[in-house]
Amino acid sequence: MTLIEELFPICRSITGNGVRQTLEILQHYIPLKVREVPSGTKIFDWTVPREWNIRDAYLANQDGRRIVDFAANNLHIVQYSVPIDVTLPLAELRPHLHTLPDQPDWIPYRTSYYAENWGFCLTHRQLCGLADGPYRAVIDSDLEPGYLSYGELLIRGETDDTVLFSSHICHPSLANDNLSGIAVAAMLARHVQSLQPRHSYRFLFIPGTIGSITWLARNEGTVGRIVHGLVLSCLGDAGGMTYKQSRRGNAAIDRIVAHVLRHDEVPHSIRPFIPYGYDERQYCSPGFNLPVGCLMRTPNGEYPEYHTSADNLSLLRPESLDHSLAVLRRIVAVIEGDVVYRSRNPKGEPQLGRRGLYGAMGGQRAASYDQMALLWVLNLADGNHSLLDIAERAGLGFAPIRAAANALLTAELLEPVSYSRD
Amino acid sequence: MTLIEELFPICRSITGNGVRQTLEILQHYIPLKVREVPSGTKIFDWTVPREWNIRDAYLANQDGRRIVDFAANNLHIVQYSVPIDVTLPLAELRPHLHTLPDQPDWIPYRTSYYAENWGFCLTHRQLCGLADGPYRAVIDSDLEPGYLSYGELLIRGETDDTVLFSSHICHPSLANDNLSGIAVAAMLARHVQSLQPRHSYRFLFIPGTIGSITWLARNEGTVGRIVHGLVLSCLGDAGGMTYKQSRRGNAAIDRIVAHVLRHDEVPHSIRPFIPYGYDERQYCSPGFNLPVGCLMRTPNGEYPEYHTSADNLSLLRPESLDHSLAVLRRIVAVIEGDVVYRSRNPKGEPQLGRRGLYGAMGGQRAASYDQMALLWVLNLADGNHSLLDIAERAGLGFAPIRAAANALLTAELLEPVSYSRD
Amino acid sequence: MTLIEELFPICRSITGNGVRQTLEILQHYIPLKVREVPSGTKIFDWTVPREWNIRDAYLANQDGRRIVDFAANNLHIVQYSVPIDVTLPLAELRPHLHTLPDQPDWIPYRTSYYAENWGFCLTHRQLCGLADGPYRAVIDSDLEPGYLSYGELLIRGETDDTVLFSSHICHPSLANDNLSGIAVAAMLARHVQSLQPRHSYRFLFIPGTIGSITWLARNEGTVGRIVHGLVLSCLGDAGGMTYKQSRRGNAAIDRIVAHVLRHDEVPHSIRPFIPYGYDERQYCSPGFNLPVGCLMRTPNGEYPEYHTSADNLSLLRPESLDHSLAVLRRIVAVIEGDVVYRSRNPKGEPQLGRRGLYGAMGGQRAASYDQMALLWVLNLADGNHSLLDIAERAGLGFAPIRAAANALLTAELLEPVSYSRD
Repeated sequence: MTLIEELFPICRSITGNGVRQTLEILQHYIPLKVREVPSGTKIFDWTVPREWNIRDAYLANQDGRRIVDFAANNLHIVQYSVPIDVTLPLAELRPHLHTLPDQPDWIPYRTSYYAENWGFCLTHRQLCGLADGPYRAVIDSDLEPGYLSYGELLIRGETDDTVLFSSHICHPSLANDNLSGIAVAAMLARHVQSLQPRHSYRFLFIPGTIGSITWLARNEGTVGRIVHGLVLSCLGDAGGMTYKQSRRGNAAIDRIVAHVLRHDEVPHSIRPFIPYGYDERQYCSPGFNLPVGCLMRTPNGEYPEYHTSADNLSLLRPESLDHSLAVLRRIVAVIEGDVVYRSRNPKGEPQLGRRGLYGAMGGQRAASYDQMALLWVLNLADGNHSLLDIAERAGLGFAPIRAAANALLTAELLEPVSYSRD
Repeated sequence: MTLIEELFPICRSITGNGVRQTLEILQHYIPLKVREVPSGTKIFDWTVPREWNIRDAYLANQDGRRIVDFAANNLHIVQYSVPIDVTLPLAELRPHLHTLPDQPDWIPYRTSYYAENWGFCLTHRQLCGLADGPYRAVIDSDLEPGYLSYGELLIRGETDDTVLFSSHICHPSLANDNLSGIAVAAMLARHVQSLQPRHSYRFLFIPGTIGSITWLARNEGTVGRIVHGLVLSCLGDAGGMTYKQSRRGNAAIDRIVAHVLRHDEVPHSIRPFIPYGYDERQYCSPGFNLPVGCLMRTPNGEYPEYHTSADNLSLLRPESLDHSLAVLRRIVAVIEGDVVYRSRNPKGEPQLGRRGLYGAMGGQRAASYDQMALLWVLNLADGNHSLLDIAERAGLGFAPIRAAANALLTAELLEPVSYSRD
Repeated sequence: MTLIEELFPICRSITGNGVRQTLEILQHYIPLKVREVPSGTKIFDWTVPREWNIRDAYLANQDGRRIVDFAANNLHIVQYSVPIDVTLPLAELRPHLHTLPDQPDWIPYRTSYYAENWGFCLTHRQLCGLADGPYRAVIDSDLEPGYLSYGELLIRGETDDTVLFSSHICHPSLANDNLSGIAVAAMLARHVQSLQPRHSYRFLFIPGTIGSITWLARNEGTVGRIVHGLVLSCLGDAGGMTYKQSRRGNAAIDRIVAHVLRHDEVPHSIRPFIPYGYDERQYCSPGFNLPVGCLMRTPNGEYPEYHTSADNLSLLRPESLDHSLAVLRRIVAVIEGDVVYRSRNPKGEPQLGRRGLYGAMGGQRAASYDQMALLWVLNLADGNHSLLDIAERAGLGFAPIRAAANALLTAELLEPVSYSRD
């Protein structure tokens, strides 16, 4: 929450100083590398746009009083508005004013990155109270050659098999979308740094769409190393968990997340991939088709405060942020712990009793939970089932299966198999 | 309806002048070729039977009054009845009289093609009113060496890949089964003639069972070109649509029809293949196993009027005939339009905005329906998904997906892939 | 029932004279071979244990009155109790006394095969009435080098493809678990002896766990001939049928049993394999992974009387035993009768009418049940579908499909295909 509160007031966009400032603050938490790509750079079908910065903007009435003021809320300005200083009657100003008639007290979030335009966003209630004008509209912005900025952190593991976590950082003062994703990703990165992971982990903090496309273009040769990936967004609201599958639908990450959520106490839903949403659109474009899903609580567009001034700090629940982080840590635990073993006594069961792994007194009605985990691991440790396969077939969580495998390893009843599903 | 009204009074059977007359009338609508196969011709396990023609038939009481008269309704005679002129008391006549005790006002439809026999069909109410007789039973019919007649129309397309539509023409004055199928097939043939189709189309108008077996035997060398096929029957009643799958169950035609029906406003059901019904029994026999399903409204045997005098013109709904034809035109549209494309910008999304294919103002809650179709086509245009695959995965109808592909083709964002699922 | 009543009083365990006596009685019914394996023999990860025999055991109060007496019920002694003769106050005796507080009138069944121990089992009500003691505890047992005994019967068929039926014989006076399984297996063996089967059949009567592991070790070279197998247990209670699938889950035996139960009048449930239960644990260990399931009525642990003195003769229903045997005979009928045929007239349907296999009068509403079976067999007799495949696709029982195939064989419309799914 501290990090989120620090980031909330900044006016971010897909380029500009707001992004740089955000990355700099993140660097206080994790050793992020900041990359800058010049405007005009050709990126597949796209061109890196000019950099946008804004100092001031307002709508003033005839008395010179600012009735809409960027200083009060940076959502008041359509992102990428070109500089303007005009005085117009309300009727002519009207096409440049954006409101939400259904939510008359909230300011909408609007952008016009690739079509030159300008505009103000305000509450519908305020719009209804406006006299005929004229009004002076001032936007003191720059749209000049500059850079696209993004941050990345690579945590090297034993292998180059890479796990990608990606969060978009282009939204201004919107809390759930996506300061929640940014903050949870930063805390997850700190957790992964504390491990000695088998996999390498790459955390991206990038502007939406153009940022991920730029990153893909600049890393085209190595994206094939990505064996699992998640886009992180909307992780702080009060809702249950939502997992949107990768385009493949049957990637390992799809099974892993589904497994973790199924054994979690919070309600969840699993949704198939659709080519709309966040940067999974780019990671899952047909030329890449990476195994990247998207983890959210309430999805984009499905909570009323989405893309409005009501997506502010009061929408966030600290316990939701904590829970989202806990789920992600469990996902990492599966990614790291999902190994294939082979039983060293595959013919009949080994005698667990003389190793202290089986109750001495027989005839009981049922096996204990722990004994079932041991029996499942032994029965399926045939070199073809990973521990996750075993957990799924057993209907048990990954943690008790991993614990059973550890006990059997200690008893020298298992041996690892060199095998990779990736 | 005009065609159906013209055909209704004719006494058709599996051979004879009623069939010839029917084909001649159809030739006023479509350029049908008529084939004649001599009686006695060996056809796989069968022999083409003698030709049956009937001029007159009646049951007269002692006063000479015709109490059952073929002239009144040609269902009164068991099809293929041999010539007879006998006078018998009711008790001896009884085994030759067929009624429907459960539907006392309807005349049943009965046949005895391959066992020499004769008989009369009448309402159960009339039978109950009969005195002990005797009665004179006269059937003035021929069962002589002749021909089996059927009609076929081949519409050549760009390729020899052939789509088969088959309707049985052996039923006398029964409207839904199968004048409805004959009329809809004829109208569909006219529609296909107006296209420049990729596929070739073959329309068959044949006597049931022996007709399709005969056609298969005479076209054994080319049936392998049939890539999709449908038997058309019972297409004029008020019920919803029923599709009976091909024996394969997962043929392209099975997916195509299911897709079209799923996106249709009328209720429908999909049924697995069973080896009972219409000529799909022959097309799907194990030695051929063609991808041929059967499209109906209410299936054979499942509406009370089936195979009775109540299956007459009043059972038909012009709007049902129109709707059946519309569904078939949509099926043809999928068959013709289901092409595989590859995105020319597969890495990340292409920039749709600068091509006028994406809304300029960002931040909206959701993508429009048209934009979703564009995004789906782009995302799955990887050379492995046909447009039908895309429509099914998107949960959208084929038409908007086809329209999106056309827009992307115009924008030079797609290219065709030479690929055939057939 | 006679056999069960004869076997009930015997004190069986995993070794000893109770097992020998049981096998000897079974030899009056079927020509069982008895095998003896010496104590100390190494069996995979196990060692054949010492042989346990018990002559007398009791708990006596200070007056010398036997208050718990092995002669009254052999469940009173923890199986494999070592010899003892001590006098102890109740408090010190307490850890050696086993009861069921939830079922205060029933004596539990307890074992301690592989950890040296001794103990008495009694009703909880009796325990609660005990004074402080002291009590004399006497167990007059031997735990000496001897043999592990089991019985097997091989019925040779036309081929070496073997069907395994296995029942555990190690439980003392417990009726449903597993005298029911033993008796039904013996009766099934007599039935199979009366056939001239295609398959060979092997019936095992073995102590649980160590018995099946021993048998597997001694027959390691030929277990690959086992094409189907069932563990038989708990087949006499009033419940419906339960089938626990093999580890493979899609073995032929899994389909066969599911088919037979689906077409049976008694309710049933199918459960996936779990590595807990009876000897299927060993047959399905990863080093063997045999196609062996387990057929039961109410499963182990799921009826309240399980492993208590209430699992006695009064729990059994003769009609349940009969029905279990009938189900197994039907399973054998499928195993024996599930053959692949090819139609000799695969192109179009053959003309059934002239062979007397089709109704002469056409136009009826629907095909008869028998005609549907004929049509299904003809349609799917393509050399790729066994009769069970056909029955499943047709939704018909195996018996009518088998009967239809017999009729078609007589009419020379089918020919056998050399094909084995095993």
